[in-house]
Formats: sequence, structure tokens, C-alpha cells
Amino acid sequence: MERDIFFMKRTLDLAKKGRGTTSPNPMVGAIIVKDGEIVGEGYHRKAGEHHAEVVALAQAGERARGAELFVNLEPCCHFGRTPPCADAIIRAGIKRVVVAMTDPNPLVAGKGIKRLREAGVEVEVGVLEEEARKLNEVFIKYITTGRPFVVAKVAQSLDGKIAMASGESRWITGEPARIKAHEFRSWYDAVMVGIGTVLADDPLLTCRLPGERKSLLRIVVDSWARIPLDARMLECKDGQIIIATTEGADSEKVNALKEKGAEVIKVPAVDGRVDLKRLMEILGSMGITSVLLEGGATLIASFIKENLVDKLLVFQAPLIIGGNGINSIGILPIDQLKQAPRFKFHSAEVIGGDLLLEAYPDPGKGGSSCLPG
Amino acid sequence: MERDIFFMKRTLDLAKKGRGTTSPNPMVGAIIVKDGEIVGEGYHRKAGEHHAEVVALAQAGERARGAELFVNLEPCCHFGRTPPCADAIIRAGIKRVVVAMTDPNPLVAGKGIKRLREAGVEVEVGVLEEEARKLNEVFIKYITTGRPFVVAKVAQSLDGKIAMASGESRWITGEPARIKAHEFRSWYDAVMVGIGTVLADDPLLTCRLPGERKSLLRIVVDSWARIPLDARMLECKDGQIIIATTEGADSEKVNALKEKGAEVIKVPAVDGRVDLKRLMEILGSMGITSVLLEGGATLIASFIKENLVDKLLVFQAPLIIGGNGINSIGILPIDQLKQAPRFKFHSAEVIGGDLLLEAYPDPGKGGSSCLPG
Repeated sequence: MERDIFFMKRTLDLAKKGRGTTSPNPMVGAIIVKDGEIVGEGYHRKAGEHHAEVVALAQAGERARGAELFVNLEPCCHFGRTPPCADAIIRAGIKRVVVAMTDPNPLVAGKGIKRLREAGVEVEVGVLEEEARKLNEVFIKYITTGRPFVVAKVAQSLDGKIAMASGESRWITGEPARIKAHEFRSWYDAVMVGIGTVLADDPLLTCRLPGERKSLLRIVVDSWARIPLDARMLECKDGQIIIATTEGADSEKVNALKEKGAEVIKVPAVDGRVDLKRLMEILGSMGITSVLLEGGATLIASFIKENLVDKLLVFQAPLIIGGNGINSIGILPIDQLKQAPRFKFHSAEVIGGDLLLEAYPDPGKGGSSCLPG
Repeated sequence: MERDIFFMKRTLDLAKKGRGTTSPNPMVGAIIVKDGEIVGEGYHRKAGEHHAEVVALAQAGERARGAELFVNLEPCCHFGRTPPCADAIIRAGIKRVVVAMTDPNPLVAGKGIKRLREAGVEVEVGVLEEEARKLNEVFIKYITTGRPFVVAKVAQSLDGKIAMASGESRWITGEPARIKAHEFRSWYDAVMVGIGTVLADDPLLTCRLPGERKSLLRIVVDSWARIPLDARMLECKDGQIIIATTEGADSEKVNALKEKGAEVIKVPAVDGRVDLKRLMEILGSMGITSVLLEGGATLIASFIKENLVDKLLVFQAPLIIGGNGINSIGILPIDQLKQAPRFKFHSAEVIGGDLLLEAYPDPGKGGSSCLPG
């Protein structure tokens, strides 16, 4: 119904206001509509704070009686940090609830809707479901697998190079794209790089957006703890640091890193290197719901090889570096085209003069994805 | 004026019907509007046949008197293969003429408009000029420089590879993109490849579109006439073949190629290889207005290096080949990022599951372009 879609769009826009701060919770918006007018709206700002439905109900007050409520995620029916929203909706006298998607948590899916219906509330499910699932792709992946959603980010030339042969890479993309890349850092729980990138670029890996700042968790995959003790990121205290290493790392170096304030986690090794699947499980168990993987080419290739990438974000600049530049993606252990990992383009957007391509694994063609539908 | 834009769009759509057959003439459409109604329309089909204005005037007949005429290119005022259109417009009693762009030929630019105005016809110039210039980018380049418009076409993976290390490249892009690539062959006067591509892929280089067929001029850049006498393209008589070689080529081989029906042109050499700038001048003098350059990576890099590419068409498939695949663009003689040739994205379109990126040299940033504005 066109009217439902109209209000659900507004609901999703509200939900997005929580982007970057709701983790490990989903982004949720809610709108209360009475006689065609919005009488209450709200969104979930932060874990531990009010759910969107509660904010909207409070704003609507008595006008909620007999009204409709739009929410992008099924209202909860269980006591978490806050009381069940389904009960609050029933108590407020809401007549009809429009839900974009059911709760992806298999333990509670459908229960909130059931409770509403049992109380005589009319419930419509599935309005703008695809958009709602995309908005909460991180939450869906994490709640259903216990592992973080992995976004691999690349900034490459038109011919797929991330640097000159000399290593020079400043700048391939323009300023608007680089600002957008910093915004992405604020969207996810952690940013991750391989030790090669630390040795080559000595990055800070902080989120440098004008105005707001967010302390980012920074993760380095460093199988033998080679990170220099004077690396800039270790000096910069803006955000916690995790060094993912193996038993092969020198224990004195590990102690020195801990003294620098870094958390060092020892991950089982495969061929002497960090087992990335195990690393993802460990990070998941630590409550990290999403990781922005920023390189380098070797680490991204390893993630792709292990089917661990949930989304690709490719900034592509309209310049040509030529065949002796550095490849954006390292070597994959394939020798036939049919083995090449396939993705699906979701969007192509112009940012400044650059393109931002968004792609997801194509499950029908050798890719894997947690995104249903 | 919105009304002028509306009719000019229709005019441009009509002009496009001549795509692939008007060379060396431009694509031109014309519409005659009286009392808000289209009373005549036409387009230029083929060199030697009627100009668009004449077709539209004939269709309008007496209704042209007092009407408006929309045309995407300034009406001609000189006797070519056909009499001047400006005179025909005046004779028919057209009251107002709306022109998208003036004639790019510096010898006649503005003269048609002048003649119309002198005869008391109201003339409006510049409606949808940008679109009109893009539509006739080939004609503009050729008429102003005498050299063909060069379109470099690449079909690459998301990471900029055109084949596996083994050379396997069938297929990186999907069928819709490959059909589109064949359509592009029908747009331009000639298709060109380097000898490396002939030796590796033994292509036919014909235009295989369902239904219509067009005999394509096929050009091989082959500095030492290494093309095998049993190459498939030499056997296939569907379209003329030009082998661009140098004095360094074996004369017996050259004679054998001529006996096979190929035209062999000897181009001055630079470092023992075909001087591409000279080759473009020679092709231009032969009346070839456009070239679709299909590879390989080395030849495209040479064209880019010489600033000879007027447009890039990049089909990009959402799959990853990895770092030991074959680069889409060969090595460029640059060692600093600021020397990297820069382009500007014009459009990004989804074709099947692939992207088609269209980019032009960015004159402000080291690129060169014949496209004004």
C-alpha cells in the first residue's frame, strides 16, 4: 500500500539517525500516525537507552489510542535492558502495527507479532522489507552467526591499482570520497588492517570527521607481532587497539605491546598465519558486530578466499596508474575463471568525481552472503 | 524553455536512429511543430541521402509555413552532396528555428544561422547543447582535427583484470554486456586491436548482432607484420582489413597479406613500432572518423600514453580475479601519481549484472579531450 510505504520510508530515515551508535543493537525507527498525521516518532539512539517504539509512544501520549504504529523491526516481546515494546504498544491502545521485517534473532522471531495479534492489534509485515534488511545487515549477520559483518573497503584507480609501484597512494580518490571513507569508519565497530599496511603506511586509523569524533576500535592482523613499538597508531590513544597474532609471536614483543596499551589476542594459526575464521569468531565473542577491513591487498584477498567478506565498498577514481601499479586485491588461489569469487553490484554512486561501488557476495555464483533475499 | 527542451529531446532521439550509418556525416534529427503539434519529422540516414531538415519539411508540406523547426545541428548553408538546408527552411516559410549546437566545422560555423536570421527567421541556439555535442562527439573530433575519435573499450573484473594468468577470459562479463559490446562495434567506423590480441585470441572482430549485420573495418596494429596468414580474421571476408605496420616488416609477408586481401599501410616508426599519432592522421586522411580500440592492454596503454584516447568504455564485472590476473591496462611510463592520466566519469550504467562506465579525458588534469564544455 502506497501509504504504508510512505510512512515506512520516514521510519527507516529515522532509524538511520542511530547509525554508528546503536551497536550491538539494531537501528530502529518508529512513527505513530493518527488520522493521517504523525503524532509521535522516535528512534533508538544507543544500547541501554529507550527503544524507538517507546520514544514514539511517549511523544504521542493519549493520541496513540486507536492510532497506527510504523516500525522497521518487529517489536520485542522479551525483557532485555528495557521492558517489552509489544506490551507497551498494546497498553497504549495502538490499533494497527506495520512492521518492515521480523526479528532476525531465531529465538524471538515472530513472538512480538504474535503477542500483538493475540491482543487484537492488526499487524502488517513486510513493508519495505528489503530496505529494512539492508539497513540492519550488520545486526542480522551478528545475531544469526555470532560473527562480525565484514566490509572490505578498497580505494582504487580505474584499472584496479591502489598505489604506484613506489607505494605512493596519496591521493587516488578525491577529498569527498576520503571524507566518505572516514564516515564509513564511524558506521562500524572496528577498523582492521594487515601488518603490511601498518609497515608501509604507518596509519593512525582514527575517525577524522569534522565535528563529531568516535573512538574506533583498531585491529591489526599481525601473525608474528611485527608491528613497530613506535607505530603511530600505538602512540595515538584515540581508540582501543587489538593485535591479532599467533603463538609464533615473540613473547617479549607481545609484552611490550601490552605495556603500550594494546590488547594482544593469540589466534590459532593456519600455515603459521592467523586463522581468519577463528579470529572472526573470537571478535564476535568479544561483542564486535562489524569490521571495516581497509587492506592491504593481501589481507583482503585472504578474507575473500575464506568467504569472509559480507560487503565490498570500492571507491574507484577515474585515473589510470597502469600495469606496474600495486593491485587492489592480492593473489587468489584459483586458476580457472569459474572459480573467481562473484559479487553482485548493489549500487554505484558518484562521490566528488569518484565512483563508490557497493557489492555483495553472489550466493548463486560461489559467493556467500548473510543477506537473505 | 521547457517546451523547446521537450521537442529537442525528441529531435535528438530521431537523430540517434542514424547511429552507425551516417559516417562521415553527423547524426541529425529535425522536427517541425505547428500549433503545438508535430507536423513533420525526419533524420539523416546515410551520407548522400537527404538531410534531416529536408525530410521533415517534405513531410510537413504546406503546414511548414509559419511553423517552428527543431534541429540538433545548425542547418547547412553550403552546397555539398545536397543543396543548402538553410535555403530550404527559408523557402518553406519556417518562422522560428531552434538549434542545439552550431556547426563544429570552423569553415561554416554560424553561417547557416546567419543566413536564416538575415531572411527574418527567428533562431534560438544552444537548447540541449551538451547532449547534442555528446551525440556527435565523433563528428566534432573528426571535423575539427582530421583524426578519428578513439574509443578504448575494456572488459575487466572488479579488480581491473581482463583475464586469468592462463589467458582465460571467457567470460568475465555477462551476455548482455557482450551484446552491448557488439552494438558498440556497429557505432564506429573501425575496430582496432594490437597484434598481441590477434596472437593470443585469434578474434574475428566482426559485428555479430542478431538481425542486422554491418561489415566492419578491422585494423591490426602490427609493427613487424607478425599476424599469421591463417588468422581467422583474414579468412573471414566480412569487412575490410587494414594491417598497420612499419618499414621493419618483412616484405614477402606484406605481399602475402595483400594477397589475402588485407590492406597493408606502412606507418613511420618510433622505437621500431608504429607511430600511433601518425597512424591516426593516416586513418583520418582515409576518411575513417572513429576507431573502437579493443585491446590489448599494451596497445591501450600506448594510446593513453600518447593522449590519443577520446573516450573510455569500461565494462566492469562484479567478480575478482586476483593479483596474478592480466592487467586491463599495460605499463605507463610514469613514476608519480600526479602524472597518472586522469579522466572524468560521464555515466555508470548497469548492463545485466555488470557495470558500464563511460569516461572522458579530464583536460584540467593532464587528460586531453576534444569535447568542449
